[in-house]
Amino acid sequence: MVYPRNEWYVACFEDELDAGAPVSTQVLGSWLVLWRAGKSVVAMDDRCVHRAARLSQGRCEGDSLRCMYHGLRYDAVGKVVEIPGQDLIPESARVRTYAVEVRCGWIWVWMGNPAEADRGRLPNLPDQVSLSDFITGAGALDFSAEARLISDNLLDFSHLAFVHASSFGADLAWAHTPMKATLLERGVRAERWIENSSGPAFLNLSDTCDEWLGYDYLVPGVLVMLNGVFPKGTAELSGFRKPDLSLAIGGLALNVQAVTPKTERTARYYFLTGPHRNFGDEASRDAMVAINHQAFAEDKLMIEGQQIILDATPELTLMPTIHDRGITMYNRLMDRLSMIAEPL
Amino acid sequence: MVYPRNEWYVACFEDELDAGAPVSTQVLGSWLVLWRAGKSVVAMDDRCVHRAARLSQGRCEGDSLRCMYHGLRYDAVGKVVEIPGQDLIPESARVRTYAVEVRCGWIWVWMGNPAEADRGRLPNLPDQVSLSDFITGAGALDFSAEARLISDNLLDFSHLAFVHASSFGADLAWAHTPMKATLLERGVRAERWIENSSGPAFLNLSDTCDEWLGYDYLVPGVLVMLNGVFPKGTAELSGFRKPDLSLAIGGLALNVQAVTPKTERTARYYFLTGPHRNFGDEASRDAMVAINHQAFAEDKLMIEGQQIILDATPELTLMPTIHDRGITMYNRLMDRLSMIAEPL
Amino acid sequence: MVYPRNEWYVACFEDELDAGAPVSTQVLGSWLVLWRAGKSVVAMDDRCVHRAARLSQGRCEGDSLRCMYHGLRYDAVGKVVEIPGQDLIPESARVRTYAVEVRCGWIWVWMGNPAEADRGRLPNLPDQVSLSDFITGAGALDFSAEARLISDNLLDFSHLAFVHASSFGADLAWAHTPMKATLLERGVRAERWIENSSGPAFLNLSDTCDEWLGYDYLVPGVLVMLNGVFPKGTAELSGFRKPDLSLAIGGLALNVQAVTPKTERTARYYFLTGPHRNFGDEASRDAMVAINHQAFAEDKLMIEGQQIILDATPELTLMPTIHDRGITMYNRLMDRLSMIAEPL
Repeated sequence: MVYPRNEWYVACFEDELDAGAPVSTQVLGSWLVLWRAGKSVVAMDDRCVHRAARLSQGRCEGDSLRCMYHGLRYDAVGKVVEIPGQDLIPESARVRTYAVEVRCGWIWVWMGNPAEADRGRLPNLPDQVSLSDFITGAGALDFSAEARLISDNLLDFSHLAFVHASSFGADLAWAHTPMKATLLERGVRAERWIENSSGPAFLNLSDTCDEWLGYDYLVPGVLVMLNGVFPKGTAELSGFRKPDLSLAIGGLALNVQAVTPKTERTARYYFLTGPHRNFGDEASRDAMVAINHQAFAEDKLMIEGQQIILDATPELTLMPTIHDRGITMYNRLMDRLSMIAEPL
Repeated sequence: MVYPRNEWYVACFEDELDAGAPVSTQVLGSWLVLWRAGKSVVAMDDRCVHRAARLSQGRCEGDSLRCMYHGLRYDAVGKVVEIPGQDLIPESARVRTYAVEVRCGWIWVWMGNPAEADRGRLPNLPDQVSLSDFITGAGALDFSAEARLISDNLLDFSHLAFVHASSFGADLAWAHTPMKATLLERGVRAERWIENSSGPAFLNLSDTCDEWLGYDYLVPGVLVMLNGVFPKGTAELSGFRKPDLSLAIGGLALNVQAVTPKTERTARYYFLTGPHRNFGDEASRDAMVAINHQAFAEDKLMIEGQQIILDATPELTLMPTIHDRGITMYNRLMDRLSMIAEPL
Repeated sequence: MVYPRNEWYVACFEDELDAGAPVSTQVLGSWLVLWRAGKSVVAMDDRCVHRAARLSQGRCEGDSLRCMYHGLRYDAVGKVVEIPGQDLIPESARVRTYAVEVRCGWIWVWMGNPAEADRGRLPNLPDQVSLSDFITGAGALDFSAEARLISDNLLDFSHLAFVHASSFGADLAWAHTPMKATLLERGVRAERWIENSSGPAFLNLSDTCDEWLGYDYLVPGVLVMLNGVFPKGTAELSGFRKPDLSLAIGGLALNVQAVTPKTERTARYYFLTGPHRNFGDEASRDAMVAINHQAFAEDKLMIEGQQIILDATPELTLMPTIHDRGITMYNRLMDRLSMIAEPL
């Protein structure tokens, strides 16, 4: 597995820490423990310096975390501050900590050197919107497959026409007209206008409309997407680029997704979804979360099937199609970043 | 695993295809998809040329099979005939297909070069009988063991006295008098007469009888067996060889079995059994299928136990007995065939 | 896995043989079958010389064990004495047998050369007591972890304060005052006096007392422990060494435990516990067995967690504390013994 370590990966949901107990998670093959030291979140290696017991089986004690095997206590920078029965604490008695940020309800961990942690690389929401404009819900699925297969899936929406025909009600047009793909500095932008559409059934429009969907797929595996319904003519008016969102007449929604490689053959797929406050409520959010769960389970079946075949056929060569432009762009970017990163 | 590829292996039951959906199966380590293109059965590699999605998760559309990841459509010779959204289809866009035959209700696949597929190597029923003379039922068991251990089991019926004493009601004579084993061009023939037997209890004979059982065990792992009860003296009359089946007075039955190596440590064991129409009915067939299931589960327990021991003791040497003559003959045949075949 | 073969390991409970069927077990990576030949217990390799079928799936027939695949019969020294259907029995037709002893209700097997089996190395109960002085019960837990991690656990009782605070009601003193550790010829002795204790609640003492606990942890992984409550002043009176047990006023109890490596990553942990007849009954024994089960499940969770971390972090270095003196002593002893033993 070669993934860049100098990047932000989602390690867990923020509210998993609310119970006051440490949380164990695996990112890029490393076991981490996440816990709250007062108000700040700490991520560190999930192993006691003493005998490698899991600190995630330990106990939060205010600003410190106690290993519950022989009682060593750690502070928020990973230093051992107590060894029961022993006065001297060696200087080397510390575990590696990781830079941490909270965003979109998720704990993001910088897997490289904390001193190099670059907050500028955290994903931003699109211009014109903020998270509080939306009523959002979240979920996650574990995949028995390499994280890159999930990224490949998300970089080619032509699969909607086949994998998600029923869950998302996607039509064949998704497969027949590739999205416009543009290389960004740290990702790929995919955009799509459908003009003169009858619009989603639930809007019950009297006139035809223009539908817009655009997302950035960012290193190391983050999707940020907006879509909505606009008055007929908006596509042309916008030069077939991203519209002024204030023109939306319905269906405006946000999706954020993050793919975390756990090991070479396992990954966790996080998602957040919901309608804009002007165009939906808690009920529509719950419906969107439910449909996402259904759709991503469809992806999971397909992707875990791919993994079985790839494992049984290591020498396999794939054959790109016209829809793979975004995948190729993105994978070149990742390969370049992984080469300059320390290997796992 | 070294098994000859230029042979016919059972890949699935014919009626598994009746639902109109593709079927996935594993033979000699390769994942295959089987499906019906109109009236003919197609077997091909279970992976889309595009991104290795499983074609067995696809959809049959008349004479073609559509991959349900991004919609590529394949014809019955494995050629891609549609790439949604892309006009040009590369000449190389095809998957490997396999020669296929249907026999005994099973789909047989030639795992080598289809151009060399030799229908003459498909197993035949014994002279004097055809499948329609029998009322047959079928079944299958999956083994967590190497296919060769199942072949070894079937080539030495002395185990009946110990493994199948209750299920088949086999007596110690099976262990004390080895069957006559004869080398065939492509297998081993095993034969056995019991003279002056009181016969199976269900026949309730007033006089003693001669019981006959004979089978061919054929490369790469196919058993074809007939057995029956004959008037006293038939053994001698037949020169202790296969009798004229029309002389049978009861218990005439057919068994066909096929062992398919799935991987180095897994195999599928197919069986078909049933009485001759003159000596049985649907009820006796159902009883025979049930007893076979019971007996082969006894074999499975023993053989999977062997596999555990062999895996834990790689340097192990075995000690043949007088009963292993057939096994030795057959394994030499297989080793010779495997050497000239392309390795898996 | 490097464990000395010239040692006694617990292979199973003696009463597992009472049903008259052979028992399969794994010790140091080897599969053994244990069975009763008349009154004596036999341990031998769990594989038939013929085709490696498991003899533990066989049948006890008086003084012999029959393989139930093709009927070979073995005597109590591992020699084949019958091959059904074959008169000649090769001299080499024998399986390896192991020296066996019964002690504490367990079958102990010497994994090295039986001719070198040294009964003097079987663990003895402490001076002053015999097994019949106690009302004992037993149990066992399987660990998905290396046996040495269990030994490490048992050689440092400071973990009681954290892992077993509720099950054993252990207080922080266990972590703050290390036990006295003394190197023995074949193990480590750990001892501890608590003076002026209020004693265990169930004794309801009117005066304070002195509590004593001492155990030997013996190669290759056997714990023999006594503990009890004594009149105030006994610690000093005994020179802070093992007291005269006849002075005990309550809580006198025996614990024997044995750790058997099954494979490199699995182990079985046997325990026996119970009160002295003068200070307990069947009910208190049952309570002690139940609490042991609970406590060792707590250890199991911690130790299997360690194994996960160690497997994911092969290059890991550990950091000993003051409590690890006994562990270090013991592991040096084991390393020395393993070097001179034949490797597994």
